[in-house]
Order: sequence, then C-alpha cells, then structure tokens
Amino acid sequence: MTHDWLRTFQEVRARSAQLCAPLALEDYVPQPVADVSPPKWHLAHTTWFFDTFVLRALGKQTVQPPAYAYLFNSYYEAEGCRVDRRRRGDLSRPTVAEIMSYRASVERAMESLLADDLAPHVLELIELGLQHEEQHQELLVADIKYILGNNPLEPLYDSLGRGPLDLQSEHRPTPAAGREDWLAWPGGMASIGHEGPGFSFDNERPRHDVFVAPYELRNALVSNAEYQAFVDDGGYERFQHWHAEGWDWIRAQSIRAPLYWQRAPRAEGWVHYTLSGPREIHPDAPASHVSYFEAEAFCHWAGYRLPTEQEWELTAERARWGERWEWTSSSYSPYPGFRRAEGAVGEYNGKFMVNQMVLRGGSFATPAGHARKTYRNFFHPPLRFQYTGIRPARIL
Amino acid sequence: MTHDWLRTFQEVRARSAQLCAPLALEDYVPQPVADVSPPKWHLAHTTWFFDTFVLRALGKQTVQPPAYAYLFNSYYEAEGCRVDRRRRGDLSRPTVAEIMSYRASVERAMESLLADDLAPHVLELIELGLQHEEQHQELLVADIKYILGNNPLEPLYDSLGRGPLDLQSEHRPTPAAGREDWLAWPGGMASIGHEGPGFSFDNERPRHDVFVAPYELRNALVSNAEYQAFVDDGGYERFQHWHAEGWDWIRAQSIRAPLYWQRAPRAEGWVHYTLSGPREIHPDAPASHVSYFEAEAFCHWAGYRLPTEQEWELTAERARWGERWEWTSSSYSPYPGFRRAEGAVGEYNGKFMVNQMVLRGGSFATPAGHARKTYRNFFHPPLRFQYTGIRPARIL
Amino acid sequence: MTHDWLRTFQEVRARSAQLCAPLALEDYVPQPVADVSPPKWHLAHTTWFFDTFVLRALGKQTVQPPAYAYLFNSYYEAEGCRVDRRRRGDLSRPTVAEIMSYRASVERAMESLLADDLAPHVLELIELGLQHEEQHQELLVADIKYILGNNPLEPLYDSLGRGPLDLQSEHRPTPAAGREDWLAWPGGMASIGHEGPGFSFDNERPRHDVFVAPYELRNALVSNAEYQAFVDDGGYERFQHWHAEGWDWIRAQSIRAPLYWQRAPRAEGWVHYTLSGPREIHPDAPASHVSYFEAEAFCHWAGYRLPTEQEWELTAERARWGERWEWTSSSYSPYPGFRRAEGAVGEYNGKFMVNQMVLRGGSFATPAGHARKTYRNFFHPPLRFQYTGIRPARIL
Amino acid sequence: MTHDWLRTFQEVRARSAQLCAPLALEDYVPQPVADVSPPKWHLAHTTWFFDTFVLRALGKQTVQPPAYAYLFNSYYEAEGCRVDRRRRGDLSRPTVAEIMSYRASVERAMESLLADDLAPHVLELIELGLQHEEQHQELLVADIKYILGNNPLEPLYDSLGRGPLDLQSEHRPTPAAGREDWLAWPGGMASIGHEGPGFSFDNERPRHDVFVAPYELRNALVSNAEYQAFVDDGGYERFQHWHAEGWDWIRAQSIRAPLYWQRAPRAEGWVHYTLSGPREIHPDAPASHVSYFEAEAFCHWAGYRLPTEQEWELTAERARWGERWEWTSSSYSPYPGFRRAEGAVGEYNGKFMVNQMVLRGGSFATPAGHARKTYRNFFHPPLRFQYTGIRPARIL
Repeated sequence: MTHDWLRTFQEVRARSAQLCAPLALEDYVPQPVADVSPPKWHLAHTTWFFDTFVLRALGKQTVQPPAYAYLFNSYYEAEGCRVDRRRRGDLSRPTVAEIMSYRASVERAMESLLADDLAPHVLELIELGLQHEEQHQELLVADIKYILGNNPLEPLYDSLGRGPLDLQSEHRPTPAAGREDWLAWPGGMASIGHEGPGFSFDNERPRHDVFVAPYELRNALVSNAEYQAFVDDGGYERFQHWHAEGWDWIRAQSIRAPLYWQRAPRAEGWVHYTLSGPREIHPDAPASHVSYFEAEAFCHWAGYRLPTEQEWELTAERARWGERWEWTSSSYSPYPGFRRAEGAVGEYNGKFMVNQMVLRGGSFATPAGHARKTYRNFFHPPLRFQYTGIRPARIL
Repeated sequence: MTHDWLRTFQEVRARSAQLCAPLALEDYVPQPVADVSPPKWHLAHTTWFFDTFVLRALGKQTVQPPAYAYLFNSYYEAEGCRVDRRRRGDLSRPTVAEIMSYRASVERAMESLLADDLAPHVLELIELGLQHEEQHQELLVADIKYILGNNPLEPLYDSLGRGPLDLQSEHRPTPAAGREDWLAWPGGMASIGHEGPGFSFDNERPRHDVFVAPYELRNALVSNAEYQAFVDDGGYERFQHWHAEGWDWIRAQSIRAPLYWQRAPRAEGWVHYTLSGPREIHPDAPASHVSYFEAEAFCHWAGYRLPTEQEWELTAERARWGERWEWTSSSYSPYPGFRRAEGAVGEYNGKFMVNQMVLRGGSFATPAGHARKTYRNFFHPPLRFQYTGIRPARIL
Repeated sequence: MTHDWLRTFQEVRARSAQLCAPLALEDYVPQPVADVSPPKWHLAHTTWFFDTFVLRALGKQTVQPPAYAYLFNSYYEAEGCRVDRRRRGDLSRPTVAEIMSYRASVERAMESLLADDLAPHVLELIELGLQHEEQHQELLVADIKYILGNNPLEPLYDSLGRGPLDLQSEHRPTPAAGREDWLAWPGGMASIGHEGPGFSFDNERPRHDVFVAPYELRNALVSNAEYQAFVDDGGYERFQHWHAEGWDWIRAQSIRAPLYWQRAPRAEGWVHYTLSGPREIHPDAPASHVSYFEAEAFCHWAGYRLPTEQEWELTAERARWGERWEWTSSSYSPYPGFRRAEGAVGEYNGKFMVNQMVLRGGSFATPAGHARKTYRNFFHPPLRFQYTGIRPARIL
Repeated sequence: MTHDWLRTFQEVRARSAQLCAPLALEDYVPQPVADVSPPKWHLAHTTWFFDTFVLRALGKQTVQPPAYAYLFNSYYEAEGCRVDRRRRGDLSRPTVAEIMSYRASVERAMESLLADDLAPHVLELIELGLQHEEQHQELLVADIKYILGNNPLEPLYDSLGRGPLDLQSEHRPTPAAGREDWLAWPGGMASIGHEGPGFSFDNERPRHDVFVAPYELRNALVSNAEYQAFVDDGGYERFQHWHAEGWDWIRAQSIRAPLYWQRAPRAEGWVHYTLSGPREIHPDAPASHVSYFEAEAFCHWAGYRLPTEQEWELTAERARWGERWEWTSSSYSPYPGFRRAEGAVGEYNGKFMVNQMVLRGGSFATPAGHARKTYRNFFHPPLRFQYTGIRPARIL
C-alpha cells in the first residue's frame, strides 16, 4: 500500500492557513526582530519552496511576478539574490489575499502533479517540502506569539477557537506522578541517529556508534516554580552561574526573567503572556522561553547539568517528552560521515552547523511528524522565542 | 461672521481618511525606515493629539485602552513614556478598524464640543490640532510613497482614483514660459516672519527686521534635465562639490541619484517611481527627492548657490512656487525674540532647532493652508523622502 | 620693513614640540575617541602640510617613506587615500623619534627656502601652514588633557614646568570687578567679518553688512558657581531645558555634568580634572568643557540666551574675552559671497559648513595670533573636549 | 628532589620582558582591535595575577596605586570592576617604565615568598600564575605581529636579534619527507584528557573514555601552496564551501585570503607579512592565520574534513605537530564530569565554554610547557590573529 501523498499534501497545506486564520490581517505583516518573520512571509515562502524546487524542476512552475523569487527565497544562495532577511517586515505587498492566491495556484499545480505516478526522487522533494512547511508551522506559532506578546495591548491569539492549536497545552501543568523520577543509563556503547524507512533530515544521519558514560536524566522538566526560585534567589544578579557571553547578554539586554514573564502589577511574583492572554504562572507547568544561557545558569545554580544530545536520545524512549524543546549541552555539529547534498537543497542544514546548540523534544506547537527522538532542532544560545525548556541531568 | 470650526474640523479629519482609502490594509502597517511612520500610526496619533490636548483639558477625554497613551504619543516628553519611534512598525494592534473607531469616537466628542461656544484658548488648541493633522497628511503622502516605492513590486498608490490627490501634479512639467526668469532684489532692509490674524506656527514669529544684500532667485526650480546633467557629469563621483558629511553619506549609502531614480532597464537614462507607478523622468519637471547635501552639491557644480530663507521669503510674492519643498541654506534657528510656550505644546517646534535646515515652499501633497510664504519646514540634511527640490540663487 | 618669516616659522614650530615636551613617550600614542588625535600624529600632520603644500609645490619635497602621505593626510580628498581618522591611535610607527626627525628634515628644507626671497603666493601658503600648525597646537592641549584626564591615574601634565603653558590660567577665577556688567547694543547696521592686511581664514571673509537688533551681552562668562546651581537644580533631569537631540544625547551617554567634573569623593559637590591634576572647582572661574547642548540648556534654565556670532563680534571690543571659547547660537555657514578656493587648500574650511555651531573667543590654550574678534571656530553640538564656555545674552 | 620554583619563576618572568625587548616604546601602547591587547597591558596583567591571587592571599600584596586593580583585571568578575577590555589602548599610563617597576616589586615579593617552604595549594596557585603568564607570552607574539603587521610601514619585529624567538620558524617549510603520510586509527575505545602528575588546566580534565570511529589524519598540515590553490580556484567567491556565518563574514569584511596575505605589488601571487617583514610566501610552509570558517571552507573544497579534538589527541603521538595551532571540528565544551573551581580562579576556563572551537597543537610562539597533546586552546570561529593552520582528516 502506498502513501496517499495528495492527501498529506492537502492536510499539511491547510494547516498552515488554519494557524493564521485567527489573526487580524495586520498581524500578518510585522517583523519585530530579525528572527521573527511576518506570518504572510511564512505562507509565501513555503509556497515558493514547492514552486521552485518541485514544480520548476519538472517544468511546471506557476506564473508569478518575477519579484516573488527575490521576495520569498529565505537563504538559498544557489537561488540568487533575496531581500535582506531583516527587511521582510517592510513589505506590505504582496497582500495576504495575493499570497493566498499564490498558495492556491501552486496547490492546484501540485495536486495535478500528485494525481500521476511520480518518480521516487520527486516524491522525496515533495516530502522535504512538506516537512519544511511543518517546520515553518512551528515557527509561525512562535512568531505569532512574539508579535502579539510584545504588543502593549497583549491581544489574544484565538479568542474564538478558530485555529487548530490546543491552547491549554501551552500552560498545562506536568502531571504530579513521577515528578522526581530519575532515569538512569549504566554507561556503554549505543547507536545514535536515524536509520530506516521513515523521513528524517540529513542532519539526523548517518546513524553511528558512540560510547556514553553513566548518567541519569530527570523525567520531568524544570517547572516554573523551580525556575522562579532561581530568579528569586538572585540568579540573574550572580555572575558565577553564567557563561561570560551569557552574563554580557543579560546585562546588555536588561534581562531578569524568561521571555514573556512580567512582574505582576499589584502583587508579588510574576505573570506571563500566553496565546490565551496574560495569565498567572502555573508553578507546576514546565518553564518555557528560556535561552541556552539561562538554561545553563539555572543548572549551575541548581547543581544539575544539561544533558548531551546523545544522553537525551538514549533516554527518550523511557521519558515523558514533547512539552518543551529541551536545550542540550551539545553544539550543532555534523554527525560522523555527514555530507551535504549537492545543489540548493544541500543548503538546508549543513551550512548552519556552527555557533548553535542542539535542542531535542518538541512542544504543543510541534507538528506531529516532527516529534521523534532523533530530531535535531538548533538555535543560537540567546534565542528564546520558541517554547524552550530545561531537563536536568546528572552523573550517575 | 465667525469661522465655522465644526465644518473645518470635519473636512480636515475626513481628508486624512481619504488619503489612506486607496491603500491595501497591509500598507497601513510597515515602517521601512525610522523616519517613515505606518499610515495607521499617523491616523491614530493625530487623533490622540485632540484627545489629549483638547478633550482631556476640558475633562472630556474619550475612554480608551491605557496603552493608547503610550502607543500614540510621538515625542512629547511632558506626556510621559512612549513607544520607541523606530518600533512603530512592529505593532499590528490596534488594527486599522480599531483606529478608525478611535477616530470616530474622538470626532464625536469633538463635534459635540464644537457645537458650543468655545473660549479662544480652546479654539487655538483646536486650530493647532488641525494644522498638526494637516502636517501629518503631507507626511502620509511621503510615507505611503516610501512604503510602496521601496517594494520590489512597485505597486500603484491609487489606480482607481479614490483618493483626494491630483496625481498628475507629482510629475507635471514646469510651464516653459519664463523658465529663465531671474527675480532680483536690490538690497536693503526688510521684514521677515508672520504677523497678523491668520494662523501661523510659533517658529514663524516674531516678525522682525533684517538687512538683505542684493541677490536674484530663478523663477523656475532645477529641472530633471538639469539634475541629470549633473549626474551624467560625474557629480556623485567628484568630492569637490560636496560637504565632507555629504560625501561620507553618499559613499556609505552608495547613493548615485535622487531617491526613486533607477537606471532604465534596457536603455540609457533613468526612470523613477511615482505614486502612479514607475515612469520615464520628464526632463522639464522639477527635480525631486534630493537631500540638502545633493542640493548643495548640484549648486556648486552649476555655479549657483541655495537661497537663504530670508531671500526666499522676500521673493516669494513674485515667484512661481509650490511645486517642491525648496532647500534653503539657512539652518533652522529661532527668530530673534522667539520663546517656547509652556507645557507640552511648547515642545512642538523649539526643541528641534538644531542640526536641521529650513525648507520653504510646498508641493502637490501640501494641504492648502500650509502654502504660505512665511512657513518654515525643516529636515535633517540627508533626508529626501519628501518632495524636495532646488531653486537657484546668485549674487546680483 | 618686511616680516621675518624665518623667525616666525622657527618660533611656531618650536612651540609645537615644547607643548609635547612634558609628556611621557607613551602619551604621544593613544586616540581614546575619534575626535582626539595622538599627539605624535599632530606633530607629523603639521609637518606633512608644509612638505606637501609648500615644498612639493616648489619641487623640494623631502624624501620620506611613501606611507607618510597615507598616514599624515587628515581630510584632503585631493591628496588621495588616507588612514581612517578613527584608527590613528592604532599606529605605533613611525615612532616619536622618527617623527621628530621628519620634523627636522622639513624644517631644514623650509629654512633653506625662507633664506631666499619668496613669491607672495608662496608666503601665503607658508603663513597658512603656520596658522594651521597653531590651530593644531590648541588641539594638542585639548587632546593631551583628554588623554590624561580620562586615565584612572589622573596624571599631571607638566609637574616640572617644562612646557610653554601658563597652567594657572586654566582655572583662574574671573576678576570680581564688573562681573555683572551688561554691554548693550542699541540696534542698527554693522559690518561683520575680516578685512584688511592681517591674516584671516577664508571663512572670516568677505566683510559684509548686517542689521542687528538691540541686545546686551554680559561682560562675564557663566561661572562654575552658576553652572553648578543649574546642575543642583536638576538641570540634567528636566527635558524642558533641552533640545530633543541634546536630551537624547545626555541620556544615551549618562551625562550629568560638564566633562571632567566628578562628584567629590567624601564630600558634597564636585571636583574636576585640570592639567594640574584633580582640583576643587573654583566657583568664580568660568565654566568650561560644556557642549552646545549644555550651553543652550543652561541659558534656557537661567532665562538667558546665547549670542549670535554677529552680536558677539559687535561687542567684542568692549568685552573681556579670551577665557573660553564661547558657543554662539549661529550655525556655521558661509558668509554672503564666500567661495571655496581651488585645489586641496580649498578643502580647508568650506566643506565643513553644515551641522556645526560657531564659537568665538579663545582660551589660555589659544596661540596669540588666533585671538581676534572675527575668528570663527566651529564644533558639532555635542563636543566639549575644548575649553568651551557660555556668555549670556538677552534682548535689550 | 623538589622542583626549583624560584628558578622557574624567574625564567618565566624574564621571558615576558625579553619578548618585548625588541619593541619600540610606542609599540607597547596600541590596541588596534579588541582582541589584541597592548603589550604593556600583558606585562602588567600577568603581574597583577600574582599580586592578587598569590600575594594578597598571603597578606603580602605589594603597595600600588588603587587604580591598578581596575586597570589590570582582565575578566574576573569576582575581582570587581575593570576597564572595558576594548579601551585598554586608550591608556598611556602607567608608562612602560612604571609597569616594569611594578613587575620588579612583585617579583621581589614573590622571590622572598619562594625562599620559604610553601603549602601545596600556594604552589598550585603559583604554577597557575606561571602557566597563565606563558599563555600571555604566546598572545604577546600574536599581538605584536598584529600591531606591526597592520601598520603601513610594515616594520620588522626584531632586526637586531634581541628577542628569544627563533624567527625562522615562523615561515620554515615543512620537511618534504612524509608529506603525504596518512595516520590511521582503526576505531575503538580510547581515553581522552589529562591525568597524572604534570600540570594541566581544568579544561583538560577529567580523563574519560570515548569511542572513536575509524579515521585517518594527514601527517603534514595544509601548505601555503595548497591553500593558494583554493584561493586561486575562487574559493572565496563560491558560497558552497562556506558556513552561512562564514560567508556573511568574508563578505562583510571583504576577506579574500588569510590574514597578512597581500597581492604582490608587481607580480602574480601573494606576499605576506612576517615578524621578519614582508616576504614571499613559501609554498611548502604550512598555511597560517586562517579562521575556523576558512579552515572549514578549505576542507570542503579539498574533499577533506577537520579532525575532532579526540581524533587529534589520539594521533598526536605519531604525528608531526607544533607548527601551527590546528582548528578542530569540536566546539569548546566541558569534559564529562568537569566542574568549575570555586572563587575567582574558577573563572579561568569554564565560563568561556560556548561559541568557541577547540584548537590543538601549538606554534613556534608557544612556550615549551604548553605543547602537550591534551592541551585545549580555543577561539571564536572568525579569529585568525594567532598562528592557526589546518590538518586534513578523512574517514578511513
């Protein structure tokens, strides 16, 4: 039995639009910081990906204004010039309606293509395009939160429940059962990375052997209550806990708490912005929106350390995960034997393998197919607009 | 017979909305450079001005989200904190519809106010608010042009003719008759500045005596053909014509021509973006969108000089003006005896009187009441997003 | 009887070296901010000026490493590439000894030249070179003070009295007699600018007629006691007194007092760094090291205004001046009829006539020949490393 | 038999001064970029280290101006405020002579201390201070080269042979014998890190087990001829070879070749600056002064990869090394079980373990005791002022 690619294509594409459906039209436009792209740009860029790498390769590219190639290329040098990525929010045109029309025309062309039997290498490109679109769906959630959550009016994302997200998951407490479980690994050889029939990105391969010394990981992520204890204990005022670059960063940016935390107006403690609006911080929900620097500083204060990505992967089967993207202490490097693909698609992952840290796990905003134990997400150490959290590790 | 302030209020307010009517909703949002504000911000800020300085003073301020005071204050320190002016484009909310509703509610309150007899000092504040709104109408035109004209799609502003502007005036050639007239002043004492019953800004007062040596001004502004001759003669490659700061500026920004000029794709010469879309440059239309640095460099090349603002004002009655804002060689300083008003309104003009140059005249985008010979516009030397041009002067 | 140019040349040149004689060798090297050049650079640049503009023109340029032309050109575009002016402090070579040797060899060539009869245009260039060197002598004093005064060790400049400066003059109180004299001008026509046989810079010419309304200037400059009253009254915390750009500047730079003022360690009040070391501030000495922004803010607070440069020049004959460079409210513009000279020397003044304010007067560091009532000094509004002070003006 | 610490102390200290002996006094002062400190600062900072961490702990700190603590602390937060590290070159005082006197006085106090029997923990601190000083000796060489080599006069470092360096080693070709040897590792478990009696830094510990897959390393480093082939083949113009951050870096900085390479004036090819002055590049000498980005790009072009630090350490015993610091593909992370020490000394290494890459090996400028196979040097990816080179690795 073969996979129904047409149906998958339609489902994935529909979900991108659904995620944006609750927005006001104005919310599609801004780019408040370089790392946060306008929602309408995401909708167009994921469409450009299919138009360029699938349809064009088969001589079936849709007819668009020539400027679209310039506007919607993200970082593919092989595809020529592109708008400065920090300037995406300056561009009011094409309008959302025009981008939706672009989406529709590429979808028609893709659907017509998918009605036929396709060569495996074409299906591979289509699958990559879908995985790519799902990655942008996760970015969409984080970027929408940033756009709304940094507005003094603190608007709700989806007051009418039109979107596909389960917004309760954003701040749901971790079940109390097993909150202090520690999952041990006795030490020894193990295999890391993806192998087998399902989809994986090139950065998850090749599967390879490693030796991992004994350790244990905590089953539960660091909770808001734990993190607040670090804040209350002066964690952001004591250099001893911080990397030198992290210390410079919190001082230069006047950072005192995770992103979206604010001092409660007429009370002790903190509130935080969620997609459901400003709320009290639930002490038992996992801490979120911390940078690598903060994750490391917390662990130093608490007497823990972050797991390596290998440790994480080895324990994943036994652990509760998927609540937050979890910082690891592993820098984002190629696996032994990794080679970049030829052509533009070869720019997908390899060229970013410097100065970034690996995150494992996922969050309520992660599309289902992206929650797998070999998946390697990566960000620069100060970034925290994603749903990022902390899992304690320690030597056994 | 007294002035019908209610009607004037309604007309001025309506015109702001009309100027934006041709826009796509997305066009209301971006701020591509710090000096260009989002159209929706202009619509809200001019409303905040009435709400704050008129209605609040009379205890009739409308009920709004508290954040509005923070979002829509431009530069009034006396009114407290405000959003960083470079970050206005990050804010998708309030939406355009919410801002229109804000406008409507302030307009209702103002109309109710204007139904009564008002004390002179209240009418003065209302008049200031209307003049202020008209200044923002002119900025709106320039900012809309910048937002559309720096988009690779180069969209038209008003293809359906819905707006109040006569778009032909943007690129209309100067009548040939009298193009080489020079208007002489024999030298002597003169009075400069505004006096009398009509409205004027504080920076136009007090009227005062000056001695002005003999000079003559050309009746016609510098044309595109003249300016292109400067470009073609290597004007942007020869430091001799430039102020040191101007030379640094054109090299740092890779500037080779006025704003909106582009090399014609498959031909000699240049085209430029207009609100009616990209067009060939008409040789007989006045050059536009030049900075003070460029105006000075052109004059040095051509053997002219810029007029002082006093020279401009003395000749204004006999000259054809109103096609472009005309750079003068006068820095923006207080007139002898000028004093800032007390309170927030005192921040209107005086605190900007450093490092800026005076412009005189007006353009097709200038509201009617703002074209008067004593009017002092001012910009920093590198700015050129306004309709700025050059009038030659020389010693008699 | 003709002027003894040889002797003048030798005296001026010797004084530059004498000013540096008290320095440690290390003090010749640093450039702590872009506006402060290393003393050894001043010594070399003034030498390059003679070598290039006088000796080369006569075919008698001295033989130097080719890099000298690149290293010691300040801003003459006509003379080709030059080291970025912010990078002068990166250059340890040539050493001070090598620069002294460069000076000696140019001086020998110049002395040999000056033994002959020289054409008037050559003498004019030599005179310009000497005036230029004297301008750099004044900069040397200010730059040395900045280098020493921003060092945590606060070293004395000339503890052994080896240099030519009368260091008492730096902090000498103004004589009490006539401290409250106001010098009035009744209003009327006047002539401004230099004319006649003595040396003047091109920016002082041509002499021209102006009308100046009635005003009066105070005979005494603003004292430290007066300025401290402004500081103590919260002058740096109240935006009302400041230009918008000045307010932004003091907040961005955390400025709370004039340059070199520091809170006294175990006492009320302030001390300040002088070339004689840290000292108590004498209440009756004229305030110094204030920017244009501070001068304006002080005057706004005190109910005064700054004089225009025309008012200053008209009153100069009757006033006590020369204690400080006095900020005027006049921006640095060309006088009517001013024209830049051809060639590199034409870059001397004209190209800086934008965004700067005129200062009149002089200080104890000003070489004798530079204290004349038509002399126009100029700086950007935030600069204050020179001995800059404030003279009150008011409407009569 | 115990170690003669007094003698070691004297030898290490003397060598710092010897390295600077060939300099002109002016060369001790500048800081042309933030990463390059003034030689006089190195001399003082290494002295401060003993004065603060050894003598003060024993109540024997020397008497110095209080500002020394502020001036000569590098990055120890526990030791309080310090001068901005980018501003070290602004400080002409203390003079070189004063710093030499500071050195002498600390040396006398230390020698008096070393005449006695000292507790092991004191000897450990002294040893750390000596290792620290030797690290700065290596920096001194690189910083001196940067100061001289970026001066347009391109002065020689040591024309009289006064210093302790063998300057021929800087550009000596690699012996031809074995230039194409590849050293293989068959795969398997291994132990990494330092253990045993000799000195090691905390970042080399604890020794731990790893599994390393089969690979081979080339015995010879990449030569200038090989690197020039990469340059000549357009390596700096083809994005495919570069990390995205590397590509942005070479374009922003207009980088076309290793640091110190310049196009030969009247010929094909390149010359480079050495401490012996500008020279032709020897094709058989190992390439030097490349960044991590360049090392990676070269390997991509050549079909190699960089070794991991584990691979490097495993092969070190059989390889010829010590010509250059060799970039590895390993980011600088703590070894399993690493813990920062308490107190200021705990800031030595751990807080830098983010965003940097490990280098292994050494150069002719590396003090003898620092060439050991477990030594971990580290720099940010764009840095290249050190003697950094490339060793090819490949999968077996």
